[in-house]
Amino acid sequence: MENNNNNNNKENETKPDEEQTQVINPWQVSSKGKIDYDKLIDQFGCQRLDQSFVDRVHRLTNRSPHIFLRRNVFFAHRDFNEILDAYERGEKFYLYTGRGPSSEALHLGHLVPFMFTKYLQDAFKVPLVIQLTDDEKCMWKSLTVEESKRLARENAKDIIACGFDVSRTFIFSDFDYVGGAFYENMVKVAKCVTYNKVVGIFGFTGEDHIGKISFPPVQAVPSFPSSFPHLFSGKDKLRCLIPCAIDQDPYFRMTRDVAPRLGYNKPALIESLFFPALQGETGKMSASDANSAIYVTDTQKAIKEKVNKYAFSGGQDSVENHRKYGANLEVDIPFKYLSFFLEDDEELEHIRKEYGSGRMLTGEVKKRLIDVLTEMVERHRAARAAVTDEMVDAFMAVRPLPN
Amino acid sequence: MENNNNNNNKENETKPDEEQTQVINPWQVSSKGKIDYDKLIDQFGCQRLDQSFVDRVHRLTNRSPHIFLRRNVFFAHRDFNEILDAYERGEKFYLYTGRGPSSEALHLGHLVPFMFTKYLQDAFKVPLVIQLTDDEKCMWKSLTVEESKRLARENAKDIIACGFDVSRTFIFSDFDYVGGAFYENMVKVAKCVTYNKVVGIFGFTGEDHIGKISFPPVQAVPSFPSSFPHLFSGKDKLRCLIPCAIDQDPYFRMTRDVAPRLGYNKPALIESLFFPALQGETGKMSASDANSAIYVTDTQKAIKEKVNKYAFSGGQDSVENHRKYGANLEVDIPFKYLSFFLEDDEELEHIRKEYGSGRMLTGEVKKRLIDVLTEMVERHRAARAAVTDEMVDAFMAVRPLPN
Repeated sequence: MENNNNNNNKENETKPDEEQTQVINPWQVSSKGKIDYDKLIDQFGCQRLDQSFVDRVHRLTNRSPHIFLRRNVFFAHRDFNEILDAYERGEKFYLYTGRGPSSEALHLGHLVPFMFTKYLQDAFKVPLVIQLTDDEKCMWKSLTVEESKRLARENAKDIIACGFDVSRTFIFSDFDYVGGAFYENMVKVAKCVTYNKVVGIFGFTGEDHIGKISFPPVQAVPSFPSSFPHLFSGKDKLRCLIPCAIDQDPYFRMTRDVAPRLGYNKPALIESLFFPALQGETGKMSASDANSAIYVTDTQKAIKEKVNKYAFSGGQDSVENHRKYGANLEVDIPFKYLSFFLEDDEELEHIRKEYGSGRMLTGEVKKRLIDVLTEMVERHRAARAAVTDEMVDAFMAVRPLPN
Repeated sequence: MENNNNNNNKENETKPDEEQTQVINPWQVSSKGKIDYDKLIDQFGCQRLDQSFVDRVHRLTNRSPHIFLRRNVFFAHRDFNEILDAYERGEKFYLYTGRGPSSEALHLGHLVPFMFTKYLQDAFKVPLVIQLTDDEKCMWKSLTVEESKRLARENAKDIIACGFDVSRTFIFSDFDYVGGAFYENMVKVAKCVTYNKVVGIFGFTGEDHIGKISFPPVQAVPSFPSSFPHLFSGKDKLRCLIPCAIDQDPYFRMTRDVAPRLGYNKPALIESLFFPALQGETGKMSASDANSAIYVTDTQKAIKEKVNKYAFSGGQDSVENHRKYGANLEVDIPFKYLSFFLEDDEELEHIRKEYGSGRMLTGEVKKRLIDVLTEMVERHRAARAAVTDEMVDAFMAVRPLPN
C-alpha cells in the first residue's frame, strides 16, 4: 500500500490512454488538469461522503468529527453506512490501513491516512492493523529485500509517532508476516481473480513481472479477519473499515468483488483526496523532487523556504490586481494546505474571505501556513524521537489485542 | 509439484497445438503416439544420462546403482556432472523433491521419484527437503485449503513409508511453511520473471487465475538453500539436486534462468521417464480411471485383476503367432512394469529373451508381475501402517538437521 497522497506521477506503470485526462491507480496519479474527483467517484463506483455522515459520526462518537471529515478530505466511501449501522447496533469493527515503505522520510501527504486512522481508532475504540508492504516496494522499486525491510521498520516509527494505541494496534511487514492463515487467504483470493481481470483493474502488461501480478492478493487479505488468527480468532464476520487515499480503491474493488465468493464480508472504505504537491494540483511532478513536498524531517528553515519559494499561489500578479480580484482559492496551495491542517474552522473561514476577496495577501497566508506546518513537523519530530526499538517491537509483535 | 508419473492427460490446462504430437508440462502429458523422449530432451534442452554417469555413481558411492539408474528410468539430467564433481571434491549437496497432494492414495508412478530419492539420500548421505504443494493443488483443483492440507499430511505418510531417514529429511507443506526467508526468495524470483515469460514456459492464458501465475516461484525457491535458514544457514553456495519426472522440467528451467541473477547456484536435475498407464503408453487416459494404475492401497486381488484385465500386452493374438513372432516388448506393459520394479537384472534379461522370442507367454509374464507388484504394495502398506502421527510431526518439524 502506497497511499499516493502526493499527486506526483510516481511511476509510469501504465501508459495513460490518449483519451484519458486523468490516470489514477495505486502507482500513478496523473492528470492533464485538476483531478476531477466527481469523475473518479463515477469511474470507481464509490459513493460521496456527504454531511449526513459527518453528523452521524459526531452523534455516534460524541466527539467533534476530525478536521479531515469536516473539511471533506475524506470525501468518498464504500459501505461506511453499514459500518456505522453495525456500530450503532453495538457491534465492533476493525480498521486496516497501510504504507508501502519506499522512502526513509515521510512527507505530510503520507501522514494524512494515519492521522485520520488514529482519530477513528480513538473515536470508535476499535482494533487496527497496519500493513507495511515491503514486498511490494521491493518488487516495484529497485530495492533489495533487506533495504525494504529496513525502510518498513523506519516508517513504522513515523507511524507510531502519530499516536496509535499500542494496546489496539498491530503493525506488520509482509516479509515478516506472510504465511499461515494470511497465505491461505492469499491463495483463496488469487484463485478467484484471472489475469485478464487484474489487467483490467491495474493495467498490468505482459512485460510486467509476475511479482506485480501476484501482489494484489497480499494487499487484499488484511481486509479479512481470518488473516489475523491471533487477533480475530472466531470472529470471521467482524467488519473491516479501510481509511486510505482513493488511489488504493482498485485493490479493494477487487477485494470486495472476491469477498462474497469466499464467504467473507466486503471491507468498507473511507477514501481521501490526494494531498497536493507544493507546485499545485495540475501537471506532472517528480517524486524525486524534494522540493515538491514538506517532509517530516524538514527543518523550520527548509519549511519556510519551500513554502515561500515553491507553494503555488492563487494570488494575483500585482498587489493592485490582488486587491481588486482576490486570490483564486481553487488553485492556491497555501490555502489548500491550511484547509488540511489548520484546526480552527473560524480562522480558516476568515482567511477564505479575506484572502479570496484580496484583503489578505499571499505572504500573510504563507506565513500562517509556515507556522502551522512548523508546529506540526516539530510535534512529529519530537514524537518520533521518543519511539524506541522496543516500542516498534511491541507494535509489531504477533500477540492478541483486547477487544 | 505433481510429478506426472503416470502419462495420463491430467488437465487440459493448455491446448495442444495441432502441429504438436506431444504436449508435456507439469499439468499435462499427452502424446499422439509413444512419447518421444529424445525429442523432449532436445525441446527442453537437458542432457541424456549415459552409462558413464551410472558407472561414476557406482564408483563414488561404493554401492550398486539403483535399478532406476541401471535401467535408465532416470534418463536425463542438468548439471548432474557438476554435483558429482563437487561430491568428489568432498563437498556436500542437498536433495529436493516434492509432490502435489491431489489424491488420497498414491499409485506406483508416484512412488518412482521417492524410491529413487531415498536411494540417493542413502548413497550420498545428504540432507533432503520434500515440498508438498498443497497450495498448488488447492489452486488447480477444486479443493479447499483444509482438504489440500489434509491430503498433504496423508501423502506425507506414504512418502515417509518409502524409508527416508528422519535425521536427514525435512518434509514441509507450502501452507505451513511459506513465509520468512522462503517468501523473500519467492519475491526475488517473481521479480525476475515476466508474465510473457511464464506464458512461454507454462502456457498460461489470460483467463487463468493469478494464483497459477503466482505459483512457479513457490516451486522454484526450495532450489535455494537460503529458503531453509534452519537447515542451511550460512551455506548459500550449497548445491541442490532435484530428482523428478521430466514434466517438472519447466519449473526448473525457469529457476535455473533466474538463479544467477540472484547470486544463487542453479539447481541440478536428474529426470525420469513417465511411468506408463496399464493401458499402454499411447493414447489418452483418464486420471479418474482407477483401472489405469496400480495404487498402493490396492489389494492382492485388485492387482491381479488389473494386471490380467488391463495391462496392455505386446504378445500376439494367438499362441501360434506368439510362438512364431514373439512379444513386442516396445509396447508391452507387463514387461515395462517389470523393467521398473524387478530387481534381478538376470531374470529381466531372461524374460526379455524368452518373451521377446515367443517362448514365454503373456500370462507367465503377467503372473511374475503380479507377484512383484503384490510384494511391493504389501511392503509399502506395512511400512505406511507403521507411520504414526508423531513420525509425521517429526519429519515436518522446522528444526536443524545434522550435516
